[in-house]
Amino acid sequence: MMNINATRLRKSFESYSSIGETDAGGLHRLALTDEDKKVRNKFVTDLEALGVDIRIDKVGNIFGRREGTDPDADPVLIGSHLDSQPYGGRYDGQLGVLSALETLHTLEDEDITTTRPIEIVNWTNEEGSRFQHAMLGSAVFTGETTLEDALELTGQAGNRLGDELNRIGYDGQHPTEPFDIHSHVELHIEQGPTLAESDTSVGVVEGVFGIAWLRVTINGETDHAGPTPMHTRADAMASAADAVSAINRLPNRLSADAIATVGEFGVEPNSINVVPDQADFTVDVRSYDNDVVHRAVGRIREEIAAACQRHGTEYDVELVWRIPPTDFDPGTCDVLEAAATAADVSHHRMVSGAGHDAKYINDIAPTSMIFVPSVDGKTHNEEEFTEWEDCVAGAKVLAEATVRLAESLTHD
Amino acid sequence: MMNINATRLRKSFESYSSIGETDAGGLHRLALTDEDKKVRNKFVTDLEALGVDIRIDKVGNIFGRREGTDPDADPVLIGSHLDSQPYGGRYDGQLGVLSALETLHTLEDEDITTTRPIEIVNWTNEEGSRFQHAMLGSAVFTGETTLEDALELTGQAGNRLGDELNRIGYDGQHPTEPFDIHSHVELHIEQGPTLAESDTSVGVVEGVFGIAWLRVTINGETDHAGPTPMHTRADAMASAADAVSAINRLPNRLSADAIATVGEFGVEPNSINVVPDQADFTVDVRSYDNDVVHRAVGRIREEIAAACQRHGTEYDVELVWRIPPTDFDPGTCDVLEAAATAADVSHHRMVSGAGHDAKYINDIAPTSMIFVPSVDGKTHNEEEFTEWEDCVAGAKVLAEATVRLAESLTHD
Repeated sequence: MMNINATRLRKSFESYSSIGETDAGGLHRLALTDEDKKVRNKFVTDLEALGVDIRIDKVGNIFGRREGTDPDADPVLIGSHLDSQPYGGRYDGQLGVLSALETLHTLEDEDITTTRPIEIVNWTNEEGSRFQHAMLGSAVFTGETTLEDALELTGQAGNRLGDELNRIGYDGQHPTEPFDIHSHVELHIEQGPTLAESDTSVGVVEGVFGIAWLRVTINGETDHAGPTPMHTRADAMASAADAVSAINRLPNRLSADAIATVGEFGVEPNSINVVPDQADFTVDVRSYDNDVVHRAVGRIREEIAAACQRHGTEYDVELVWRIPPTDFDPGTCDVLEAAATAADVSHHRMVSGAGHDAKYINDIAPTSMIFVPSVDGKTHNEEEFTEWEDCVAGAKVLAEATVRLAESLTHD
Repeated sequence: MMNINATRLRKSFESYSSIGETDAGGLHRLALTDEDKKVRNKFVTDLEALGVDIRIDKVGNIFGRREGTDPDADPVLIGSHLDSQPYGGRYDGQLGVLSALETLHTLEDEDITTTRPIEIVNWTNEEGSRFQHAMLGSAVFTGETTLEDALELTGQAGNRLGDELNRIGYDGQHPTEPFDIHSHVELHIEQGPTLAESDTSVGVVEGVFGIAWLRVTINGETDHAGPTPMHTRADAMASAADAVSAINRLPNRLSADAIATVGEFGVEPNSINVVPDQADFTVDVRSYDNDVVHRAVGRIREEIAAACQRHGTEYDVELVWRIPPTDFDPGTCDVLEAAATAADVSHHRMVSGAGHDAKYINDIAPTSMIFVPSVDGKTHNEEEFTEWEDCVAGAKVLAEATVRLAESLTHD
């Protein structure tokens, strides 16, 4: 059994959390800012101290390689991301990178040389808050997005991603392209309430929900709110309210896991005494069952059509993003489960509602994830919190699973 | 019977409409802009040609007085406003001022001297689009708003109303205060569909709806849309959608004339994959029955409370504006009705859903209004349209009623 050093992990966590820390105890460390540069520098210094071979690729992903005894064996890849949401939490991403770092430290402590190499990674711009493409580093790495498109991304202040990479000194020279990977494990907070509700320390993640994003526009007629009787109106706001209300009631008629969210909403002309002639909103639909997502989109269109017919308005529904569910590698899940059992950590299998870098890596290598609980499911804000004993439990499972995978003879 | 000159009225209407005209045939002539200055100058020139006594008061209201035979008799006041909405229509306000001007022209043509004086008025900033206080000139005139507050109003570009009055040369010296008025009639477009739907040329306006304006804030919890199951959410958007949907269905359970409008709506953080933790919206409720408005506000609070209880969210409802219904003077309504009958113009009695300057004048003098139809109820945009024969019919009724009121011996 791998026995990590919980005190060292805690010190490391506190120290990294001081870079970009907020008054309320969160993190404000957006991708490719000065704070991101500082935390990357610290990460590289730590990797140098571990004596691993460091590579920085052209989109700024940082890899550290600890060699194994078999020079021909594919490596086990572990890691996550160090960038944060605006005024986000300290656990999202960072805990996965620091748990991976702790795995390498423990291997040094125990003087263990694995058969396979072990690689640690910090992906660039996972959050997609500053440059609007979430999971960017892993997307470019796996060929989902081209390097050229990534470098040309422009932030809200007009900065080009390529220029910002250069400014902070992380426009590396290593090609951003996939190499042979034996297996990949990412530790991450759940960002939902499931583990905390069931008082479980670790989730073995079997897959990721399928997602559909819709943009809806409803057009009616603008009228003076005073002299226009209800029956002569074509009210875009009233149509949208009926539709959103119905969309919110849909999921529990489709499946136990389906979810639907209307996150953006606006009306025109947005004046207190004018009947709105336009309403725009988004719908985010998810389920682990691709057929449920498909049917949900159909039902949402029907609800919008019904609301608009009732109010005499017109609508347009655009499907702006659609990804099928991801199934992680069953063999890797089995290793994680066995490691959790060996480490005597409470665990159950689960599915992720959110996307992660591991989703893209799953396209090129056997992959799974370790989730640790998010108290009250809070995430993407400064209240984000995971009990420290759960952080330690997750790190233990990661270390144990990494060694098991690094000794595994399958897949080569 | 007074027989107005429809050709002269048409020429005058086209000529005034060229000041601030838009490409789509509307008017963009906001209060105290250069266009407002031009149209005021033209109005003053026309009053000078008529030989009436001109007074400009401290808030820029323009009065023109045609003397009667009885120097002690209170005057009949007629008129409306020459400012427009942003990219508004040509009929709103302007038609009332030009019909009043045509009444004075006709009296000259016919060489009629009335017993009472007749005063024509152009009120300042009726629309309230540039400086946010609708019906401002009449509000200051009747003491509803102080002159000091009016002059300190600031437009969206930061201009002070008092400075803009001075800039265009309409910071008059006459005190802005009520004088004894025998009766007041304002001709205006209906801005609703009632007259057009019933194919009637003139509405005799018996009163104005009572109004309540509410500002509603709903607070829930922000969550990642992916990993958060429906049952653990406190979704402000879903709560608001349920509430707005219910509010929209309320009016027809309260009375035949009740109306409710949600005109402004916004959510925070307004992100496609985040459950909103805040939703803000407005409600505009109107009816001619004050008790209906009162009950509507109560029912709206109940619907919001029910929606929020269902979704586990909290709410705050603020009553930001409340005016009771206005009853216009029955005697003046009778005169208008008799004038319409004498002029052989189709007419019926009705109530106004919108506020007008006449509403404030009603506080200090017997008042009523003449409405002419708005095709499809369209107003406050460039599509606003009234058939010319209806404009002429309305102007005839105004001229006839003005003379009848100017000969009336009541009220002094």
